[in-house]
Amino acid sequence: MSGTARAANLRQLLPSKSPAKAQVVNSASEASKDATRRLARLIIESRFEDLPGSVRHEAKRTLLNWVGCAIGGSGHETVNSAIAALLPFCCPGQASLFGRRERVDILHASLLNGISSHVFDFDDTHAYTAIHPAAPVAPAILSLAEHQPISGRDFINALVIGIETECRIGKAVTPSHYEAGWHITGTVGVFGSAAAAGRLLELNEQQMCWALALAAVQPVGLQEMFGSMTKSFHPGQAAQNGLTAALLASKGFTSSEQALEAKRGWFDVMSTTPNYAALTEEGWEILNNSYKPFACGLVVHPVIDGCLQLRNAHRLTPDAIDRIDVDVNPRVMMLTGIKEPTSGLEGKFSVYHAAAVALVEGAAGERQFSDEAVRARATAELRRRVFPSVDPEIGKVQARVTITLKNAKRVAVFVEHAMGSIKKPMSDAAIEQKVLGLSDGILPPDHVRRVIDLCWRADELHNIGEIAQRSAKA
Amino acid sequence: MSGTARAANLRQLLPSKSPAKAQVVNSASEASKDATRRLARLIIESRFEDLPGSVRHEAKRTLLNWVGCAIGGSGHETVNSAIAALLPFCCPGQASLFGRRERVDILHASLLNGISSHVFDFDDTHAYTAIHPAAPVAPAILSLAEHQPISGRDFINALVIGIETECRIGKAVTPSHYEAGWHITGTVGVFGSAAAAGRLLELNEQQMCWALALAAVQPVGLQEMFGSMTKSFHPGQAAQNGLTAALLASKGFTSSEQALEAKRGWFDVMSTTPNYAALTEEGWEILNNSYKPFACGLVVHPVIDGCLQLRNAHRLTPDAIDRIDVDVNPRVMMLTGIKEPTSGLEGKFSVYHAAAVALVEGAAGERQFSDEAVRARATAELRRRVFPSVDPEIGKVQARVTITLKNAKRVAVFVEHAMGSIKKPMSDAAIEQKVLGLSDGILPPDHVRRVIDLCWRADELHNIGEIAQRSAKA
Repeated sequence: MSGTARAANLRQLLPSKSPAKAQVVNSASEASKDATRRLARLIIESRFEDLPGSVRHEAKRTLLNWVGCAIGGSGHETVNSAIAALLPFCCPGQASLFGRRERVDILHASLLNGISSHVFDFDDTHAYTAIHPAAPVAPAILSLAEHQPISGRDFINALVIGIETECRIGKAVTPSHYEAGWHITGTVGVFGSAAAAGRLLELNEQQMCWALALAAVQPVGLQEMFGSMTKSFHPGQAAQNGLTAALLASKGFTSSEQALEAKRGWFDVMSTTPNYAALTEEGWEILNNSYKPFACGLVVHPVIDGCLQLRNAHRLTPDAIDRIDVDVNPRVMMLTGIKEPTSGLEGKFSVYHAAAVALVEGAAGERQFSDEAVRARATAELRRRVFPSVDPEIGKVQARVTITLKNAKRVAVFVEHAMGSIKKPMSDAAIEQKVLGLSDGILPPDHVRRVIDLCWRADELHNIGEIAQRSAKA
Repeated sequence: MSGTARAANLRQLLPSKSPAKAQVVNSASEASKDATRRLARLIIESRFEDLPGSVRHEAKRTLLNWVGCAIGGSGHETVNSAIAALLPFCCPGQASLFGRRERVDILHASLLNGISSHVFDFDDTHAYTAIHPAAPVAPAILSLAEHQPISGRDFINALVIGIETECRIGKAVTPSHYEAGWHITGTVGVFGSAAAAGRLLELNEQQMCWALALAAVQPVGLQEMFGSMTKSFHPGQAAQNGLTAALLASKGFTSSEQALEAKRGWFDVMSTTPNYAALTEEGWEILNNSYKPFACGLVVHPVIDGCLQLRNAHRLTPDAIDRIDVDVNPRVMMLTGIKEPTSGLEGKFSVYHAAAVALVEGAAGERQFSDEAVRARATAELRRRVFPSVDPEIGKVQARVTITLKNAKRVAVFVEHAMGSIKKPMSDAAIEQKVLGLSDGILPPDHVRRVIDLCWRADELHNIGEIAQRSAKA
């Protein structure tokens, strides 16, 4: 079946927009009818053969970027702490931990690799929903691939359908779900993990409904925990919960078959006005996935981009700067309003630090969000000269940066799309460089180059588990 | 410190009601201030020595009743299915499964024992909140007791503080949280598990705040799954999640320190008008725990009690009955409205079946909610003669049962408090009989009598893990 045939398939599950086809949604109840079952059918019918080339390639970019983040975060104190707490209760030897030596059961590998891949806040982002798509999905199915042989083609298909599932459910509940306070990557990511793992376990339609329901009862994550280790726990636990859901469903563990649309189902409890059409509409959400050149939440990237542009264009040095005014979308201050960060992690939630460090160091990689970078005097001084103003007219991917120099001269830039956004995506080569940089000091560069090569050839591999094995320390 | 001293302690943490003490709550924000920290302090300062005798005894009744339910449910297909799915990924040999031979890691033992203890819907109930207190708490700390030696006194204290924690948080969000569709035993139970396990891990105040926060991000359960295997997954997963939260916190895994009261914290996201005073008010919620003589949800117990009373008082036989009118609280029809159940599990969610089987068989134990009992012709026929009417005037623990005989005679009873409720509690001896009945055919009666004895002497045991070990199959 071609990509077009696949799109036609997606359309069949949708009320058509064409009046000629005469199938029009008359009411919310009609749109919601069998929503869980229709989504389950879409998942179990998904096949690698039906994926357009652009989707296959984006899946590999997503995989590669995720692998880099998982290796890069593997030595973080968050991962060390989680391993210290849980290793005594893990079944040893089953699955690899990226960038590390321990081998644990596939459920805990999902959790721990999920944590390490998100701990730098450097992983991929589906901008419309704010979901980080790979972190809850990739670790679950890479772990599973160490338990049973999974071909690269099946893996790519599962990764895509997992991401489609979480992003479509996420779209359906945007913005009310996020605005309520949930950390959507964990609460919706669990559906992605269940769908992807369930597809590889070859669940039938009823079992896939159960897997989605078992995912629905295990949301993970509140935004209140941003700035603490618990933020990266969210996608990790979502990965583990989704894999658990799929495994249970595969052994006949029953659940509701209308988990999403039921009166007291997930949509009703977790959102206000769900958009059911988003679940099965045409197109591929993975094509809206983006990769970060900067090691912090996407919300603050336009500000960083603007600062870097002005720094480069005008050869600015920190001591020449009097003040930095940034006009931002309201979400920027909701999510990154920490004025005086005291740690690298808090620095990621500080638009003040992001702007200052970009101007001081001309970069915003992981090193710029270390404890040392946050404490550096020049950056700390410049942070106090950052003055954000909320402007609802400014879009979520935009920012205006105005720098007043001590000589009273003013320079300004309006960022329409930040570097790394869908409109200004990172190149394949830039992602490779990012992965090499993240792996620096953890795995030998030639090992990492081998893993990069395996990711680009993922759909040719007989056993995708090789990627996990080669990403661990020897 | 005496029980009175303990009560005084609880009061210190509360704004006093006495004007002389001049500490009056002026606003919601004052009531919410430091709510998580105050609760954490209450938990870490709890000591067996401060528990009144009545509380200690109720804890033993709760433990004994839970042990019976865990053994009784251990052979259920729900447990078999979960074990088939997850056993390949469990670390073997660490902790016992009640009523079974397998030994698994303490995290999965928490899950699996939690499932088996709730699968018959026969466990304890805190009526005001509808929480089943023991199922998320007891399995977590009994498993932990097989990993590190825990004295009976410390165990009893942890069980009590776990139950206090979940029931107080539950009270604070009743009724809005349950009405939204959450299955409160799983969503709030996770706090109980985290508190109890965290107390035994000797967390400090900050770590206990983190443990509560890590519990807050892992709610489990929607009411939509009632009638499927997933219902009993909820408390099991809550037990596992709470234990995970406490273990992580014990190794310095950081989180928010205001998980409950923060602007986007748990109370804000999961309820509408939280009653903060409930968190630290005087008294012991465990004294409001009740044990079921009937093997189904508490909501339908008044109807069963009324049917049994009329059957016994008037020596009714099914063939003499023309119709059964039951006037019930609206929750009865919300939760047990299945008119034609097709399985034992569905029978538990059918007021029609509950009334009919009580009249036909003169009992409502686990056997009366088997698949066979639901399919039995006499019961199925009588089910169709049951006519419920919703009456908001009727309290949650009340029911009116009016039976019209074929000879046109009418008999009626108004049930003010059902058998097994706090006002008409099961005796210690009745709980023992219930445990022996539940264990019948699973463990030898003399083994069970030994376990019963250990439960009554729990506070004298050097190693409470002995109860778990002796409750497994040899």
